[in-house]
Amino acid sequence: MYRTHNCGELRLENLHAKVKLAGWMHKSRDLGGMTFIDIRDRYGKTQLVFNMDSNKDLCEKARKLGREFVIQIEGKVVERSAKNADMATGDIEIEVESLELLNASKTPPFTIEDDTDGGEELRMKYRYLDIRRGKVRNALVLRHHVALEVRKYLSNLNFIEVETPVLIKSTPEGARDFVVPSRMNPGMFYALPQSPQTFKQLLMVGGMDKYFQIVKCFRDEDLRADRQPEFTQIDCEMAFIEQEDILAVFEGLTRHLLKEINGVEVAEFPRMTYAEAMKKYGNDKPDIRFGMEFGELNDIAQHKDFSVFNQAELVVAIAVPNAGEFTRKEIDALVDWVKRPQIGALGMVYVKCNEDGSFKSSVDKFYDQTDLAAWAERTGAKPGDLICVLSGAANKVRAQLSALRMELATRLGLRKPNEFAPLWVLDFPLLEWDEETQRFHAMHHPFTSPKKEDMALLDSNPGAVRANAYDLVLNGNEIGGGSIRIHDKATQALMFKHLGFSDEEARTQFGFLMDAFEFGAPPHGGLAFGLDRLVAILGGQETIRDFIAFPKNNAGRDLMIDTPSVLHEEQLQELAIQVIGPKQV
Amino acid sequence: MYRTHNCGELRLENLHAKVKLAGWMHKSRDLGGMTFIDIRDRYGKTQLVFNMDSNKDLCEKARKLGREFVIQIEGKVVERSAKNADMATGDIEIEVESLELLNASKTPPFTIEDDTDGGEELRMKYRYLDIRRGKVRNALVLRHHVALEVRKYLSNLNFIEVETPVLIKSTPEGARDFVVPSRMNPGMFYALPQSPQTFKQLLMVGGMDKYFQIVKCFRDEDLRADRQPEFTQIDCEMAFIEQEDILAVFEGLTRHLLKEINGVEVAEFPRMTYAEAMKKYGNDKPDIRFGMEFGELNDIAQHKDFSVFNQAELVVAIAVPNAGEFTRKEIDALVDWVKRPQIGALGMVYVKCNEDGSFKSSVDKFYDQTDLAAWAERTGAKPGDLICVLSGAANKVRAQLSALRMELATRLGLRKPNEFAPLWVLDFPLLEWDEETQRFHAMHHPFTSPKKEDMALLDSNPGAVRANAYDLVLNGNEIGGGSIRIHDKATQALMFKHLGFSDEEARTQFGFLMDAFEFGAPPHGGLAFGLDRLVAILGGQETIRDFIAFPKNNAGRDLMIDTPSVLHEEQLQELAIQVIGPKQV
Repeated sequence: MYRTHNCGELRLENLHAKVKLAGWMHKSRDLGGMTFIDIRDRYGKTQLVFNMDSNKDLCEKARKLGREFVIQIEGKVVERSAKNADMATGDIEIEVESLELLNASKTPPFTIEDDTDGGEELRMKYRYLDIRRGKVRNALVLRHHVALEVRKYLSNLNFIEVETPVLIKSTPEGARDFVVPSRMNPGMFYALPQSPQTFKQLLMVGGMDKYFQIVKCFRDEDLRADRQPEFTQIDCEMAFIEQEDILAVFEGLTRHLLKEINGVEVAEFPRMTYAEAMKKYGNDKPDIRFGMEFGELNDIAQHKDFSVFNQAELVVAIAVPNAGEFTRKEIDALVDWVKRPQIGALGMVYVKCNEDGSFKSSVDKFYDQTDLAAWAERTGAKPGDLICVLSGAANKVRAQLSALRMELATRLGLRKPNEFAPLWVLDFPLLEWDEETQRFHAMHHPFTSPKKEDMALLDSNPGAVRANAYDLVLNGNEIGGGSIRIHDKATQALMFKHLGFSDEEARTQFGFLMDAFEFGAPPHGGLAFGLDRLVAILGGQETIRDFIAFPKNNAGRDLMIDTPSVLHEEQLQELAIQVIGPKQV
Repeated sequence: MYRTHNCGELRLENLHAKVKLAGWMHKSRDLGGMTFIDIRDRYGKTQLVFNMDSNKDLCEKARKLGREFVIQIEGKVVERSAKNADMATGDIEIEVESLELLNASKTPPFTIEDDTDGGEELRMKYRYLDIRRGKVRNALVLRHHVALEVRKYLSNLNFIEVETPVLIKSTPEGARDFVVPSRMNPGMFYALPQSPQTFKQLLMVGGMDKYFQIVKCFRDEDLRADRQPEFTQIDCEMAFIEQEDILAVFEGLTRHLLKEINGVEVAEFPRMTYAEAMKKYGNDKPDIRFGMEFGELNDIAQHKDFSVFNQAELVVAIAVPNAGEFTRKEIDALVDWVKRPQIGALGMVYVKCNEDGSFKSSVDKFYDQTDLAAWAERTGAKPGDLICVLSGAANKVRAQLSALRMELATRLGLRKPNEFAPLWVLDFPLLEWDEETQRFHAMHHPFTSPKKEDMALLDSNPGAVRANAYDLVLNGNEIGGGSIRIHDKATQALMFKHLGFSDEEARTQFGFLMDAFEFGAPPHGGLAFGLDRLVAILGGQETIRDFIAFPKNNAGRDLMIDTPSVLHEEQLQELAIQVIGPKQV
């Protein structure tokens, strides 16, 4: 037996016990006649004491141990004279009686501390050392607990976890598929699933009633920051349900996680329509932990002499709390910030709300104090606040002001990681106009059902048709989304027509699902949560990388195992493929 | 709300309740003025009653429903006059007051019954209908319960489930990899993991201490019967442990599953060395639910006048219980069976053990009653048994007799699906001679540690070196296996040398793992269970296909979604690959 206890569990209750520990040499201090070593494992650290007087050989052996050496010791638990309240085992230490070196270590390329000196690339290359750091280890442990709680919760509600296949069929719709050449079927390919969407719908047709799966999904996209080519979803589907049934289950699940994982009790989740979210926050995933709601100023700011506003489709503003003190330099920087190409505003009008109730704006030439007071009222600005006004085409200016709102909230510390504000966003549009192809696309997917009362608009005003589609938003992040699906042939045919599919195209792409729908498909709907992001948010972070054991970088590379990589020529031949163009080696 | 109850839960306690049910029209019977319909969902069936006298329109509507139509009804729970004890809801029925057709169905291509009329191909093509059958549905539900119990059990023991990547690096060792071209890195490829072996060892180096994962693995093999290109493992690894620690955990897990899933209490698992298993059963995964242990007859059957035995390396026999009554025709068929090319024996000698204590054999010319009595004693044959004797090269004849033993046990009903006999097989050989390449290969993998006491044999007799490797066998199936790994550089270098790796080769193939081992690798070891097979055996079956929601056929094809399939030319171009040779369309 390598150990009687782990390095995180000994307490005063264990006093005088003879114990065996194994772990890594974390830190060593020589104090004259004594040597103190912190031994570390996944569970914590324990202080070891070696005494030159009582055992010189042993103490000298201990002094030769380098950082991250793997050791095993036997000794006696004694009370510390100087207790360490920051350490779970800080009341005790081990008087070591024997020490065995289990393995040596080269000096690690960065320190194994929460606050390490290693850069991101280096830590990715030596991810196995990075995982020894408490921060990363705790993130992975948190992920485990979240996944387990999800499974327990849904299983208790009679959901069945069903594994759907990873080697499936490529479909031209949506994002790009990763594909897998089939050696047994030369010239043919599997694809990796972007989601188990069709399979979960088939499981509903198959009568599984309540399905879930925590499952890897794959998208071959150009990776934006904080995206991964492989990611994990909590995927769910239910039959014989209405939208309210689904919201109830997943609100319950989210509340359960917040309570179990974060110890936070959250009241009933607020709800907002997509239209309302866009109007109030310029965003379909608003962070509602803080105010700064949009105030539309068209009626009170247009038709004065300020042509910029007069020509704009929308004039819209937010009141930034306690930002009235911003210096001219700070405000200029803010104007530059919104004019960056990533944001794309042409300029920004601002109003300082002075403590004395007066206003000072960048457009004093065109607007008097009464005008500005009306703006303050519309945006809810208080003395001491700063009103920021953008104008332009409605869609664009809303997105710009939303970006500014989030940026300022971050700068002002209003996005508190330990505060949780979930929100349902409902009634998403069914269709989305695509400029490139000049036609409507399904906003969610072609199986999303339109709202019955909007069906009549399909011909006259397709963009106004709302879907039975919903997103769960947490702290300004889309945690998940889903919809009630179409389950009857007539509505499905209508949808395909409106999406510009010929019968032939619909057949080729979705034939097996359409066939299945002819054999008694029940009403059904579902939802998928992004596990990586959910875990990151529950862990108080917004980047997902530390919550993934072995992430890839933005070029889709695993720096540790150094892949993707070239294949042997014979391997390609067996697969009946060859590489076009110059091969990278 | 679509339903107040599911179709499996109403009982006499619910009498007079007004209920709403939804499900599939399973079966319909018209009895004069009454129509009875069984409505079915995942949870069961409930009988609905329609009465021509009380509501003619409704009853006529009900009579028009076809098989698998999706319906919703409201009605009152009443007591049945003729109760059905075979049905959980058999005490009650529903007097239907309203009926809504939610969806029609074409006539399904096979009956939705446990005992269906559909052939395998047809059921694979319409898998979503096959899943409606109780047998398949229950298999998937069982799989869910097993996976959940595994997760709970291991989590309670402080194991952490960590997701390892699916897009990894191709290694030339072992079975063939499935590969994935990288669009972002033209000419380069990911590979799908055959197992997370290296990652779990890196997690041990990373200090995760106790890891598990229920994870999809991929092998591009020519599919033998009952193999799948994607399969699921319960993968585990532990640090600071010895072999006994691992056996204890996974014996505990298996015992827990047998109890929770099957209600069976199993005593401490017996153990057997590999050598013993081969000698006693000719097989490293013996089914020990029945006897028929091998008796070696060399000393008592050779050096008579029977040259076949005299020339054989091994003469070995089993006693088949109560098979002494086999007719000459049956025995001839058995001889033909062992002579089939799949088995490859040259012949079979038999001895009938008569009830009167005498013997009648096919070699009476060479052996007298005393000789045959010695054979009976050696094989444990009793009056009424049949002794089957094979001879030849030891390895081959053991495999042949093992096949015969299993075949006869199956025929005689000795392999009872509800009886569970787990067995640890220990001390597997470290190396395995490969005829094709004329060198030793690692039997498990190159990181398996040799037994310390056998290290000296590495040079003199490599084939005799035993490894710290173990398999768990259940009812004649290998459920899982694992080993204690090498964790120090010196032993690893020695192993690579004996496996014929140059330093360069070792570096190229296992560089990142060898690097990791230099930074304080702890002693570690692990094990992996095959979930598909484990679930099938717990479900009392030996074929895995019904325990996989969407299996592939022996050509690696999914008949339902019809894949693998050809890709668009543009898709291939984007991936910088092209297909060699004629394309199948």
